[in-house]
Amino acid sequence: MVRREKLEELKSYIEELKIIKMETLDTSKQKEILDSPSFLSFTKHRYYLNNGKVMTRELLHKQGGNGNAALVLPITEDGNCILTVEPRLGATRTVAVGLPAGYVERREEALKAAIRELQEETGYVCRNYYLLAKYYQDPGISQAYNYAYLGTEAKKVGKQKLDSEEFIRYFECTYKEALELVDLGYIEDVQAQLALEKAKQYILK
Amino acid sequence: MVRREKLEELKSYIEELKIIKMETLDTSKQKEILDSPSFLSFTKHRYYLNNGKVMTRELLHKQGGNGNAALVLPITEDGNCILTVEPRLGATRTVAVGLPAGYVERREEALKAAIRELQEETGYVCRNYYLLAKYYQDPGISQAYNYAYLGTEAKKVGKQKLDSEEFIRYFECTYKEALELVDLGYIEDVQAQLALEKAKQYILK
Repeated sequence: MVRREKLEELKSYIEELKIIKMETLDTSKQKEILDSPSFLSFTKHRYYLNNGKVMTRELLHKQGGNGNAALVLPITEDGNCILTVEPRLGATRTVAVGLPAGYVERREEALKAAIRELQEETGYVCRNYYLLAKYYQDPGISQAYNYAYLGTEAKKVGKQKLDSEEFIRYFECTYKEALELVDLGYIEDVQAQLALEKAKQYILK
Repeated sequence: MVRREKLEELKSYIEELKIIKMETLDTSKQKEILDSPSFLSFTKHRYYLNNGKVMTRELLHKQGGNGNAALVLPITEDGNCILTVEPRLGATRTVAVGLPAGYVERREEALKAAIRELQEETGYVCRNYYLLAKYYQDPGISQAYNYAYLGTEAKKVGKQKLDSEEFIRYFECTYKEALELVDLGYIEDVQAQLALEKAKQYILK
């Protein structure tokens, strides 16, 4: 238990620093500039804090929204993980090894998105899902709030259904091999690393 | 050890999907549009994969660079953590509890940046630093590659040195209390969560 006086200290800082008003200064107009509609955009805002201070920040949008995403660590009955392999802008080898994941659609629940992305990217479904972690991905510039799940009894039920510009392979290995792929520098995504780490308490018992 | 045949399978997918050529389609011109220079910007590119496929993606820049960052989990001789409290766009309470962190400057080493940010944001320095994790923060849209360190024997040596629009409080609590602040929803940053999780192997022994 967090000591009561510590929680009080923390709450006093939150009270002092909380944002009480927001003004939009600029909305970006990249859409009109780029040859084609853009996925990324941002807006600029002035935030008024409860302590009287003011700060200016830019807020990133993905497809005009927050960019909330969901991912799954799927584990088969044999205790194997299903990992994805896909080209990524952020990857040492230009190809990332990671977990099935994707953006949450408007009005979609995060878990539904995780299940949908798992099936689209790999053709697998799981029997049970457990929340491993939830978090902001880049809280200085974005309100993207993401969910990471552990999926158990993963089974192949169909084919991949990829978008036209999605190129994804998938890959089955043991959980311990997946942890080693982090150490070997193949799994480089912070979210995949956190999910694999948090899953230890469930799997390595 | 990852089985040799698994590593071969993985490498064949990487070979197939790797990016072999990149064309820039558009560079954003937000700087001319916004009233003031912007922190965020993006460019649009066409990526040619080794398998003959082509994908178009937008790449996020922060201050014209990758946005590489570094963070520290500082632990005092008594085993307490130093946490930061600051207003954030991505935070349930509009204020985030997290770890001292910041962007790596041009030609700066990640560890130097972590040490600098720790001292600027809290006035603390540590005696020893250990790498906890390194990762891409948002590999679908960004090449930001971040480093998370554990700092030991943290000692207060001076005052905070904050930028004009930085408003940061700091906060000392036990490591177990910090873990509980994750569960209570105060620590919501994926990077802080990963650092706290990875530190378990060093601290909870």
